[in-house]
Amino acid sequence: MKQFFSFNDVKSNYKELLNKALDYKKNPFTDKHIGENKTVGLIFFNPSLRTRLSSIKAAYNLGANVWVLNAGSDSWTLEMADGTVMDGNSQEHIKEAIQVMSAYCDVLGVRTFPNLKNKDEDYNEVILNKVVENSSVPVVSLESATLHPLQSFADLITIAEYKKTERVKVVLTWAPHVRALPQSVPNSFADWFSQIDFVDFVITHPKGYELNEKFTNGSQIIYDQDEALKDADFVYAKNWSSFTDYGKILSNDSSWTVTKEKMNLTNNGKFMHCLPVRRNLIVSDDVLDSDSSIVIPEATNRIFSAQTIFSECLKSK
Amino acid sequence: MKQFFSFNDVKSNYKELLNKALDYKKNPFTDKHIGENKTVGLIFFNPSLRTRLSSIKAAYNLGANVWVLNAGSDSWTLEMADGTVMDGNSQEHIKEAIQVMSAYCDVLGVRTFPNLKNKDEDYNEVILNKVVENSSVPVVSLESATLHPLQSFADLITIAEYKKTERVKVVLTWAPHVRALPQSVPNSFADWFSQIDFVDFVITHPKGYELNEKFTNGSQIIYDQDEALKDADFVYAKNWSSFTDYGKILSNDSSWTVTKEKMNLTNNGKFMHCLPVRRNLIVSDDVLDSDSSIVIPEATNRIFSAQTIFSECLKSK
Amino acid sequence: MKQFFSFNDVKSNYKELLNKALDYKKNPFTDKHIGENKTVGLIFFNPSLRTRLSSIKAAYNLGANVWVLNAGSDSWTLEMADGTVMDGNSQEHIKEAIQVMSAYCDVLGVRTFPNLKNKDEDYNEVILNKVVENSSVPVVSLESATLHPLQSFADLITIAEYKKTERVKVVLTWAPHVRALPQSVPNSFADWFSQIDFVDFVITHPKGYELNEKFTNGSQIIYDQDEALKDADFVYAKNWSSFTDYGKILSNDSSWTVTKEKMNLTNNGKFMHCLPVRRNLIVSDDVLDSDSSIVIPEATNRIFSAQTIFSECLKSK
Repeated sequence: MKQFFSFNDVKSNYKELLNKALDYKKNPFTDKHIGENKTVGLIFFNPSLRTRLSSIKAAYNLGANVWVLNAGSDSWTLEMADGTVMDGNSQEHIKEAIQVMSAYCDVLGVRTFPNLKNKDEDYNEVILNKVVENSSVPVVSLESATLHPLQSFADLITIAEYKKTERVKVVLTWAPHVRALPQSVPNSFADWFSQIDFVDFVITHPKGYELNEKFTNGSQIIYDQDEALKDADFVYAKNWSSFTDYGKILSNDSSWTVTKEKMNLTNNGKFMHCLPVRRNLIVSDDVLDSDSSIVIPEATNRIFSAQTIFSECLKSK
Repeated sequence: MKQFFSFNDVKSNYKELLNKALDYKKNPFTDKHIGENKTVGLIFFNPSLRTRLSSIKAAYNLGANVWVLNAGSDSWTLEMADGTVMDGNSQEHIKEAIQVMSAYCDVLGVRTFPNLKNKDEDYNEVILNKVVENSSVPVVSLESATLHPLQSFADLITIAEYKKTERVKVVLTWAPHVRALPQSVPNSFADWFSQIDFVDFVITHPKGYELNEKFTNGSQIIYDQDEALKDADFVYAKNWSSFTDYGKILSNDSSWTVTKEKMNLTNNGKFMHCLPVRRNLIVSDDVLDSDSSIVIPEATNRIFSAQTIFSECLKSK
Repeated sequence: MKQFFSFNDVKSNYKELLNKALDYKKNPFTDKHIGENKTVGLIFFNPSLRTRLSSIKAAYNLGANVWVLNAGSDSWTLEMADGTVMDGNSQEHIKEAIQVMSAYCDVLGVRTFPNLKNKDEDYNEVILNKVVENSSVPVVSLESATLHPLQSFADLITIAEYKKTERVKVVLTWAPHVRALPQSVPNSFADWFSQIDFVDFVITHPKGYELNEKFTNGSQIIYDQDEALKDADFVYAKNWSSFTDYGKILSNDSSWTVTKEKMNLTNNGKFMHCLPVRRNLIVSDDVLDSDSSIVIPEATNRIFSAQTIFSECLKSK
């Protein structure tokens, strides 16, 4: 595997990778030879808890070494634009930075958030693409401007573990938040689960929160949350800012908070969220603290999604 | 061992652990198998030098991997209160954060300072208790609001190494400082050394600096520093802010600085301090730079106190 | 090897070390036993990308563990002066800090920049000397106030790899920049390459930018950049602030930028820079993006310069 940015990169073999991840969960250290004499490099342009620690753990499970760079605080301010005379604040061009960093590792993970101001820049994945262009080793997205594939893969592992029937209904629901958040998690979730063969996928959100059709792949959108949740096996809550009115908060309607009453509409459904989650805003305490919440196993599976992807990257190197 | 927060956690077997630590000092890598395929997670809510590096070294000595998280700068702002609507600055509840972080390691070390404003909150160890409640793996205090047990254990190792007689007199003395400091080190030192069987323990400080009786266990308090230091085998200096007039600085009396003259009152006593130490405020240069100072061996022993505790935690997991 | 600060430390055996580095490049993991049960400690008083990551990778290649400390943000504010009453902002004296940190590792790397305000303080290497005085393990400069020896060693490896003739002409050229930069890289480069036996070394810069003669060792200085570049096999560009008018920017003459036209004056010369480099200020895009640029192999060789030095230090310990 040379890159892992979106469902496209695993579309042909996602079932095989899913089985591999489930195997890793049972036997985390079975492939310790794969990482021998290998180094996983992790670059964070933005803060991270789960991605940072689960990626480190994943590397350790494979017997690999790790380095982590907080871009900015640990090193230099990077220039992204080509052709500029660098007489301002930027101290190093991303071209050199990535060429060099990729020389110091065997697979490169990169986290980079959208700025939510320039839709084209974000949706063209300007930074991620510069990373790929300049890296001499496989690149893994640790969340990019528009997608969060390691999260979606962990979500797939989790749903595969908890599903009780052949087919399951999975509902992605918008929920309120006080800050304008990226669309990367819902984009990614929609992209994956609209294409997983055992899933009936539904999206629900207030009008104006339509995600980019590139990622929803014609999924059913139901604007009435109660109707959407009916008979759901899995409820995946997430806030996002508007894609059409780019980066804007259009609603803070607290009736979209996922409560016990909402969960009662489902088929004894499981509650999921990528975390961090704002309690009593996205979801009520009584849901998050109940047995129907599987956010912790979901976060735990971040280890095995990363381990599977790193393993594929290290083998292909 | 499921937790290590105070002397209580080792009261029944501290002599055995002390011997183990002294063995580790002689043969640091003898238990490298214990950490195989294991990860030590370290979370710092506050800055740290010795605890950070000695804990990392301790884990390496056991053959374990390590990750370190600077809570706040590396990740998200945590909410501590239950039941709140998280529509403010806090991005993640400590409940989820700790459940998730403990899923990514085999033992969890946590450093968290008191705020020195709310005595009840500090002395109820609100943060540490939330960590314990939510952790799925053993938790080790890397200094909490009220105690610093890895330091006290290192102090015990050091005194055991340097004592020349069966019984020794150990004096904990307050010393002046310009900032209001936690009581965690002196609380912890008092809690341990008031219960170590080969120690005659005395505390000396200006009036108003009485420590919480919960930790002093009826130790002798002598308000005259000169009298207290008489015939001392070990002088343990430390500043702390007032417990009774909570978090306040009541004195900056420079006559409490530990000087050569003060040390001359002792039984050729050794000078100890947990570090960082402010020179010529807590202790004069001529003491700290003399042979009677054992602050560096004391700091070195932090490796072996941590190694012993991590070892016990990893075995019990 | 007990220390690595300047060319002096390797003057007697640099050819042997060069061969060792070239061997490591071919077989990075051949000496994995040398780092077994060993820990490389890295302290950064200033930001770093290449040095940080290449040093970590070097340690991993030797089978060693690593810890990294960002002095200041991770730990405490250090006091450098002797004899002061520490009642200000400094929380720990560098004496204790280094004694303790060196107790937690087997070789200590330290990065410390000049302040560019007090020439004597910088050129007396006050901080580095305090580190050496107080360290119980070998100390490696990760760039000091006046020198950057791991960079110069990597430059030597690179020139040895790319040279096509027995003797080569190497030109160090000043180039413009918007900020006042240390002289450590050019000092160090001059100190090494004025003493490498297969090199004809020339320095070119505007008047007033003369480096300390202690490091130039009587090298030829040509103030006309075009003349200096004539027939050069390697062009090493770098900005530095004035040594004589200490820390000042005396010129921002853009005619000193290394362009295609300038490179055409050379003997099909290779372009080098230690990075980070400001594009179109130090060097034009068309040079940096051309085949004559070897800045990425040069940065890659930072791994092998560090690996060779760490290896020597760990063996001597």
